Amino acid sequence: MLNLPTRLLHGPGPSPVAPSVLEAIALPCIGHMDPQFMRVMNEIRAMMQQVFQTENEMTLACSGTGSAGGEMLMDNLVEPGDTCLIGVNGVFGGRLAEKARRAGGSVQTIETDWGKAFDQDVVIQRIEETKPDMVALVHAETSTGALQPFDRLAEAVHRYGGLLVMDCVTSLSGLPVKIDEWQIDAAYSGTQKCLSCPPGLSPVTLSERAMNKVNNRQTPVNSWYLDLNLVGNYWSGSRAYHHTAPVNMNFALHEALRLVLEEGLEARFARHERVHRQLKQALLDRGFSYASDPEHSLPMLNLVQFPKSVTDEAGARRRLLDEFNLEIGGGLGKLAGKCWRIGLMGHGAREENVAAILQAIDAVI
Amino acid sequence: MLNLPTRLLHGPGPSPVAPSVLEAIALPCIGHMDPQFMRVMNEIRAMMQQVFQTENEMTLACSGTGSAGGEMLMDNLVEPGDTCLIGVNGVFGGRLAEKARRAGGSVQTIETDWGKAFDQDVVIQRIEETKPDMVALVHAETSTGALQPFDRLAEAVHRYGGLLVMDCVTSLSGLPVKIDEWQIDAAYSGTQKCLSCPPGLSPVTLSERAMNKVNNRQTPVNSWYLDLNLVGNYWSGSRAYHHTAPVNMNFALHEALRLVLEEGLEARFARHERVHRQLKQALLDRGFSYASDPEHSLPMLNLVQFPKSVTDEAGARRRLLDEFNLEIGGGLGKLAGKCWRIGLMGHGAREENVAAILQAIDAVI
Repeated sequence: MLNLPTRLLHGPGPSPVAPSVLEAIALPCIGHMDPQFMRVMNEIRAMMQQVFQTENEMTLACSGTGSAGGEMLMDNLVEPGDTCLIGVNGVFGGRLAEKARRAGGSVQTIETDWGKAFDQDVVIQRIEETKPDMVALVHAETSTGALQPFDRLAEAVHRYGGLLVMDCVTSLSGLPVKIDEWQIDAAYSGTQKCLSCPPGLSPVTLSERAMNKVNNRQTPVNSWYLDLNLVGNYWSGSRAYHHTAPVNMNFALHEALRLVLEEGLEARFARHERVHRQLKQALLDRGFSYASDPEHSLPMLNLVQFPKSVTDEAGARRRLLDEFNLEIGGGLGKLAGKCWRIGLMGHGAREENVAAILQAIDAVI
Repeated sequence: MLNLPTRLLHGPGPSPVAPSVLEAIALPCIGHMDPQFMRVMNEIRAMMQQVFQTENEMTLACSGTGSAGGEMLMDNLVEPGDTCLIGVNGVFGGRLAEKARRAGGSVQTIETDWGKAFDQDVVIQRIEETKPDMVALVHAETSTGALQPFDRLAEAVHRYGGLLVMDCVTSLSGLPVKIDEWQIDAAYSGTQKCLSCPPGLSPVTLSERAMNKVNNRQTPVNSWYLDLNLVGNYWSGSRAYHHTAPVNMNFALHEALRLVLEEGLEARFARHERVHRQLKQALLDRGFSYASDPEHSLPMLNLVQFPKSVTDEAGARRRLLDEFNLEIGGGLGKLAGKCWRIGLMGHGAREENVAAILQAIDAVI
C-alpha cells in the first residue's frame, strides 16, 4: 500500500479535504446507470445549483478536472469562426483563449497587468467595438490572486447576441458567484479549490441561452467526450448512457457540497475573508508584500512577494515541504521565481492552519 | 452522508472494487506537483508498462474515463484528412469511428456482425487496398462480448506507414494484451473493468512511432486537455504543470495495479477463464445461450440470450437489482432488449460471485 506523508495543502490547490469527504470517496462503487446513482446525480445538481446561485437545469459535474470543464464550455459554445473576446491577465485567461482557438474561434484578447482586474467599463467598451459572439473572463485568477468583478458585463454582451462565460475554478464557494443575478451564460469550476474535494471533476452550469447555442450548432462539437448534446442527456432528460461516470469522485463531490451548504454560503464566504485577513496582516508584519491589486484581491489565494532574506525561493518552498509538510505555490508563468501563492481554501481556511503556515514560514525567511 | 446500497457489480462495468483500493482512494490528498506524487506517477507508469506488456516510455493515466482515453488517441494521432480504417462490430468501434471523424479523419469502416470478431486476413486485405494512416480495432467489445485477435495485423499496417490502435478497455489484466509483441502503436483502457478500480482514469500507452506522429503534427491537437505534447511533459520529461491530476484516483489506480501484479498476470488471466467457464456451464444448464461467437468470446463479459420464461427482461434486471443488489447489463445498441451482459471482472471474477449471480438469476427466470 502507498506510504505517503500528510501534507498541509496551502498552495493554489488541491486544498485540504475534510474527513467525511474522504469517507464518501471510499464508499463501495455502484453502477453509473443505477437508479441510486441517478439520485446521487440529481442531488449533486440541486446542490450545485445552490452553490452557483442559479436555476440552470443544465448544471452538472464534467468528468474531468477544471481544465476539462473550461474545454467543455469552449468546445460546445464556440463554432468555427465565432468571435471571442477573452480577458488575459494571468495564466488561466491565456488558457481559455487557447481553448477557444482550438475550438475554431476567432479570438481577440483584452489584456491588463498580471495581478490587476479589468475595469468593467473598459471591457464594455471593447464589447461595443467588437460585438463578440462570446466574452470570457476569469473570476479568480489563480496565477495572480486577482478578483474580477462580473456584475455589469452581461447587458453589453447580450445586446449583441453574445454569451458571457466565467472561469470560477478558484472562487466557487469561497466568494459570491451569482450566476443568475449577474446573468452569466456559462461557468465552470473545479472540485479541488474552495469545495475541498479531491481534484477530478468540474462543476459546470449553462443558461438556456447557452444551451440554445449548443443545441443549434451547425457543426459537430470537436470533442465527443465533452459534447453537451450527449453528456447533457445523461445528466438530465433521457438518462442515455454516454460514458462511465467517475462514480466515487461524484460521491466525494456530493459530500463536499453537503458540507458547503451545511455551513451556509454567507458563513463560508465570511470565514474565507476572516482567515485571509489574519494571514495577510501576519505576512505584512513579517516583511511580505502583496503583489495583487489590493482593491481586487482574492481571499483564498494570496499572491505575495517574499522578504529579501529569502534568496533561494525554490529551496525555501522545498524546506517548507520537507521539514513542515507544508505545500505553498511558487509563481506561475511570468511570475515564476518572483512570488509565492498561499492558498486558504475551503476546509483549509481555518485559524489553526494560518498558525501552522506562519510557524513554518518563520523558519525559512 | 450518502446512504447507498452495496451492489454486486456484474454488468459491463464498473466492477467490484477491492477493499484496499477503497482504502487507497481515501488517503489524504497531496499536491499534483509534490515530489511524492511524482513518485506515485512513476510507479503507476512502471506498473502499467508491466500490465500492458510494453516498454513504451509514453505510458500514463489519462485524466478521464476510458472514453477520454480513446478520444486522447484519436485527437492526437489523427490529423485532418488522415485516412482511418476502423473496425465496427459493436457500439465501441462505432464510437472510435466517430471520434476519429471529429478529429478530422477521413474514416472508412470495416464491419462484421455484432458478436463476431474480424478475420485478420480480411482486415489485412482491406489494409492493402486502402493503405490507411491508422487502423483501429476493439480488442474486447463490451457491447457484444467479442474478442478480436490482434497478433497478425501490425506488419500490414506498418508496411504502409500507418499506426495500429487498440481499445483494450475491457480486456486489460483479464486477457493477454501484448502491446510490444503485437506491435500495437497505441492502446487505451479504463480503470473500472478488470483492473477493478473505480472509474475515472484511462491507462494509455503509445509507441515511439506513435509519439513521432504526435510530435511532428502540422496542426494543433483539437483538445488542449488531452494534448499529449502537453500531458506527456507532465507525466515524463520536464514535469511541467499542465492540469491538476485527479490525485486520489491515481492513488486508487496505484493500489489496483499493485494487486494485479501481486497476483501475477498469468494467474489473473487463468482465474478469469476458470470462473467464466463455471458461469457459462451453469447458464447453459439453465437454458441461456451465448450470443457471441464461441471461438472469439470474452471470459470477462458474457453476452447471453435469456430463456423464453423471461418475458420482461428490463423488469427481471430491475428485480435482480432491487431484491438481490445484483447489477447485470442489458443489451446495448442494436442488442437492447435482446441480450444480457454479465461481467466477471477483476475482483469480481470469483467462485462466490458466480454462486451469488446464479442464486439471484434462478429467482427471476
